[in-house]
Amino acid sequence: VLLASRPSGVPAPEHFALVRTPIPQLGNGQILVRNHLLSVDPAQRGWANNEGNYSDPVSLGTPMRALAVGEVVESSTPHYCKGEFVYGWFGWQTYCVTDPDAVLRRVTQSALPLSANLSLLGINGLTAYLALHQLGRPVAGETILVSTAAGSVGSFVGQLARILGCTPVGLTGTAEKVRIAQQRYGYSTAINYRQETAIAQALQHACPQGYDVFFDNTGGPIADAAIRSMRRHGRIIQCGTASIASWAKPVSGVRNEREILTRRLQWSGFIIFDHIREFAAAAEKLTELALSNKIVFDEEILFGLDQAPTALSRLYRGQNIGKLIVQLV
Amino acid sequence: VLLASRPSGVPAPEHFALVRTPIPQLGNGQILVRNHLLSVDPAQRGWANNEGNYSDPVSLGTPMRALAVGEVVESSTPHYCKGEFVYGWFGWQTYCVTDPDAVLRRVTQSALPLSANLSLLGINGLTAYLALHQLGRPVAGETILVSTAAGSVGSFVGQLARILGCTPVGLTGTAEKVRIAQQRYGYSTAINYRQETAIAQALQHACPQGYDVFFDNTGGPIADAAIRSMRRHGRIIQCGTASIASWAKPVSGVRNEREILTRRLQWSGFIIFDHIREFAAAAEKLTELALSNKIVFDEEILFGLDQAPTALSRLYRGQNIGKLIVQLV
Repeated sequence: VLLASRPSGVPAPEHFALVRTPIPQLGNGQILVRNHLLSVDPAQRGWANNEGNYSDPVSLGTPMRALAVGEVVESSTPHYCKGEFVYGWFGWQTYCVTDPDAVLRRVTQSALPLSANLSLLGINGLTAYLALHQLGRPVAGETILVSTAAGSVGSFVGQLARILGCTPVGLTGTAEKVRIAQQRYGYSTAINYRQETAIAQALQHACPQGYDVFFDNTGGPIADAAIRSMRRHGRIIQCGTASIASWAKPVSGVRNEREILTRRLQWSGFIIFDHIREFAAAAEKLTELALSNKIVFDEEILFGLDQAPTALSRLYRGQNIGKLIVQLV
Repeated sequence: VLLASRPSGVPAPEHFALVRTPIPQLGNGQILVRNHLLSVDPAQRGWANNEGNYSDPVSLGTPMRALAVGEVVESSTPHYCKGEFVYGWFGWQTYCVTDPDAVLRRVTQSALPLSANLSLLGINGLTAYLALHQLGRPVAGETILVSTAAGSVGSFVGQLARILGCTPVGLTGTAEKVRIAQQRYGYSTAINYRQETAIAQALQHACPQGYDVFFDNTGGPIADAAIRSMRRHGRIIQCGTASIASWAKPVSGVRNEREILTRRLQWSGFIIFDHIREFAAAAEKLTELALSNKIVFDEEILFGLDQAPTALSRLYRGQNIGKLIVQLV
């Protein structure tokens, strides 16, 4: 699946082209990965655009950048053996010839399904775990507000907050997601922000004492309202800006510097790829939690490479529950 | 000097009344402080307004809240002796009867003038020292941008940054202040933001590699431009919002959440009164630096209590160099 033209905002199917080309020859030190499962991530919007993002945009005419789990089917390096599974930058394609530095983590065999390596043990679970612990620094008894509570990251933040003895409160966009957040992801309350005319009042009602951590995946006016109910010394984790369709031009909003000052907030940006060296340890911890039934993970699996181009717009319409994955094998 | 009416924005002389009343009787455990020097601080704008600030507004008809240095002239508590000097919440008045909890710090005798307790060793110097070290976490070799570089806090931030082996770059509002920032406060460059039509370009020119710490006393459009040149993992210290005349209504601006995310910024609010227990140690350190001629401090002293009501608008017009102090004795 090549990126055929440059989108402005969320990439739609017309920005991609599905082509069939021969598998290139392996160079010295390279591996050939047969992709089993492809990841669909909100961050792909930024990679497909050219918005001065945190990583270079995907070049037109090249395979769409994506995380994937695959099997090493050929290897010309002693570091990887034929038959082992790896997680890394293998793109939206069936086979990938690559240098080993595209591998982020070796897949450890466990009783969990292989797909867990893209959800719980992929960047979603790892982001929830590392961002919440490192930037949120939650203390038992604190309240934690999470935007996109039923999303691929938020679903883990609620459960991890609960494990830490905190009270997670969620924001999400449908009645169904409110139900799932509360019944499945540990949220004590969830607010349907599309149904509320006054989000600030809904937050006030749900958390009369405010909250200590705001795990923000959306940004925008919902986040502005949320910031205005934060407790003193609260921590904001900026993990995504899903509510803003494009940053190509400056986006206006309400100024927050007075809130940061008077509430003594600490507002931090989190990009998971700064933390690659911590992946293995965090994945081990998350595997333990899942195997002891302390954490659940949901996935929505689409079958076939031709599903990939539509998957991103599906994600941004908020139609999926849990991690969106394209299965090839 | 009583707060006579509630200002909206910067308090002007007409919001105050100068009245003469008898000194109240000392209660048990109280002290009578004769004020020698009164502090004039940007934060007083917030205390006089009713903007949902970090501290309660000053009640109408009561003395204007202010820090001061004075002499204990009567004491009905064994904790304070007649004749000792103290720094604390004694208000814009000649005498103050108060419980000892209004005292923030005992004044330690040194070769520095008494007024240094309101400037270098007062909240200005303490803010520069504690905020820069705790939230800025500067490392030798880093670049530090400071708004209001020649102001009562910024004048110390530049010098402290230089002492730490960093490169301080300043923003300030007059050519004279540019000169002082560079010649006196250790700044390697200073930008006159009033003279620049394109502040972003001026910043780019002054710091082609960006900066690691942004010590922000102003907020507003200058800060927006500054944020867009920050280096990855940069730290923003929100220490004041002097460029915004009133926060009574929401103030609009450009959204910064994408910058926080992609640059992995950490944006923190700093209020000096959260750090009272650290005052004595920080003041000792600053005294050492001043006595060994590593740091200079400037003060502009107005004489007489009747100068106090005009002092705040003077401060907000940016007319003073260094710490503005009203001397009574």
